Amino acid sequence: MPAREFLMIPGPTPVPDAVLSAIARHPIGHRTVDFSKALREVVDELKLLGESTGDLFVLTSSGTGAMEAAIANTVSPGDAVLSLVQGVFSERWAKITEAYGGKVQRLTVDPGKAIDASAVKDVLKADTAKKIRAVTITHNETSTGVLNDLEKIAAAVAAHGAVSIVDAVSSFGACPVSIDKWGVDILVTGSQKALMLPPGLAFVFVNSCGWEAQSHCTSPRFYFDFAKYKKSLDADTTPFTPNVSLVAGLKASLDLIRQEGTQAVFARHERLKSILRAGLVELGLTLFVTDANASPTITAVLPPEGLTVDSIRKALKSKYSIVVADGQESLKGKIFRIGHMGNVFERDILMTLAALKAVLTELGHKC
Amino acid sequence: MPAREFLMIPGPTPVPDAVLSAIARHPIGHRTVDFSKALREVVDELKLLGESTGDLFVLTSSGTGAMEAAIANTVSPGDAVLSLVQGVFSERWAKITEAYGGKVQRLTVDPGKAIDASAVKDVLKADTAKKIRAVTITHNETSTGVLNDLEKIAAAVAAHGAVSIVDAVSSFGACPVSIDKWGVDILVTGSQKALMLPPGLAFVFVNSCGWEAQSHCTSPRFYFDFAKYKKSLDADTTPFTPNVSLVAGLKASLDLIRQEGTQAVFARHERLKSILRAGLVELGLTLFVTDANASPTITAVLPPEGLTVDSIRKALKSKYSIVVADGQESLKGKIFRIGHMGNVFERDILMTLAALKAVLTELGHKC
Repeated sequence: MPAREFLMIPGPTPVPDAVLSAIARHPIGHRTVDFSKALREVVDELKLLGESTGDLFVLTSSGTGAMEAAIANTVSPGDAVLSLVQGVFSERWAKITEAYGGKVQRLTVDPGKAIDASAVKDVLKADTAKKIRAVTITHNETSTGVLNDLEKIAAAVAAHGAVSIVDAVSSFGACPVSIDKWGVDILVTGSQKALMLPPGLAFVFVNSCGWEAQSHCTSPRFYFDFAKYKKSLDADTTPFTPNVSLVAGLKASLDLIRQEGTQAVFARHERLKSILRAGLVELGLTLFVTDANASPTITAVLPPEGLTVDSIRKALKSKYSIVVADGQESLKGKIFRIGHMGNVFERDILMTLAALKAVLTELGHKC
Repeated sequence: MPAREFLMIPGPTPVPDAVLSAIARHPIGHRTVDFSKALREVVDELKLLGESTGDLFVLTSSGTGAMEAAIANTVSPGDAVLSLVQGVFSERWAKITEAYGGKVQRLTVDPGKAIDASAVKDVLKADTAKKIRAVTITHNETSTGVLNDLEKIAAAVAAHGAVSIVDAVSSFGACPVSIDKWGVDILVTGSQKALMLPPGLAFVFVNSCGWEAQSHCTSPRFYFDFAKYKKSLDADTTPFTPNVSLVAGLKASLDLIRQEGTQAVFARHERLKSILRAGLVELGLTLFVTDANASPTITAVLPPEGLTVDSIRKALKSKYSIVVADGQESLKGKIFRIGHMGNVFERDILMTLAALKAVLTELGHKC
């Protein structure tokens, strides 16, 4: 009997049994009092987790759908948008914006590096005509494992007056995100990362500056139209048939987060990151990101000289049923990425390190 | 212990145990050989079911997301579009088209009536300049329970040369849909109807005329961009993180459909429709749609004089845990709708009729 595949990838992530059980229950009708109650509960709980008193919409889509929603509701053709680019997912913001006719100015740093808030401030200060309407920000760049200082970046954007649009897909629920206090205008996240669900739901927080931008936006939208979600949520429902099973699962996963305690969840992610990074260094491997910018949810590492990423990933999968991720696009084959978000514990990190040590040794690396 | 809520609504519909079990299994990674194999299997099976040799994309969204995908990939601002309108969902096509800047000409019939293919032919014949670029069609209007003659309507559209864009959300899998033979260009459906899954997946069939329209379309799109799905599907994958759990469930539900036999599934839906309609007439109720146009999946019925839809629905729910749907928008409170699609059998119809008889009698109606 092969061991069940263990996902040490940046989503889907391991799903707790209580969540799987909730999802396995027969779906309820979405136009019922019971569903409205469940929806209201998860919305309120997510707002607590994101420290937001604004709006929070539940979309039936993947995280990219929520990113498109953010752009389609705020960026009109011709709008100038500053995109902070440092990898695949931050570049995705730029691509979606361009698909909607936005004029994108990229502030690019090398993959593996963090965005410097003062550089953002400088670019925005130079925009004395206030042409930049929005700034796209990636809190945690999943393709490299870099966590940016969102608080400082959002403050720089707020000082300028542009709308801050944040991808927190792989950070939300794993580390503090303080939407109101940091002045974040729009923030999106997804179900299949630290929220410990299968993929299929995405979430968009919208604060008052986000609504202001939305009110002027001429881009076409229907399924992702914030106004429709707002009208429906005011009646404790959704404009279109939602994934009711995942909403039930979300209720279960948010219960688990509340039981552990939000601060304890964040501390656990910090601890896992530190244990993993120390262990990888001990194996003689080179980390792709400095300690100061290291993500609490995903760690990228270079293969030892002479070994390929492919051979390491294949051996981990075939011998230990542990799945780690390859690099993406230009980093494919150059790094591998170990996810440690959500339903992951110390023992899983120790297991992964031990399996990696065995694999590397067998492949000829001297650990 | 209250009985589990029994869904006689037009989605979500009852989900078979085998499907729930498949969904409850731990999700697998979406960039794995196992997922690619599962995706390929469900795509091939759905194409058999829709009698299509064209493309079929799996979207993580509700059916409305797939409708938006159809429009965003084919309708550019200013394009003339003919919308065949007969209720809430056929009107939704018009609204999405207008959101994308399409100039919509509506061919409207009263709710409860079918679209007349010869009237469509006449409108299209009058368009000698061939200005109409697309025609939106609703195969089965869920808000009233009308099944249109899609074969004849699609033929009229094909003769004109416009792109036929079809919503088969509440018909696909319950009655024959022959995409290639009928010359349908784009057809969308969803997971939570006759395909017996919870909500959260949608499907878009695209044939060559659909691609021709797509190649000229200037509307913005990213998450719903057909080209991205095509490129990914050619590599047996999806462009964005899919709902892997529902894909596993879909494999299980398509297995059940294959085991019963497609023709047997269609015949069962025909039989359920007939038994239900005969039973409702026997209770002295008035059907909203004539036999000739009656849907195989949803039956709308008027409340007896003096009784409200609300009182009937509430009594069915509280006494028997059976959920039936209200009318929508202008028909709210005027009709109620009984869904009978997917995982529904003779005994469920008999149960519903018996419960309805008891409820109506108690409310003072002489059955």
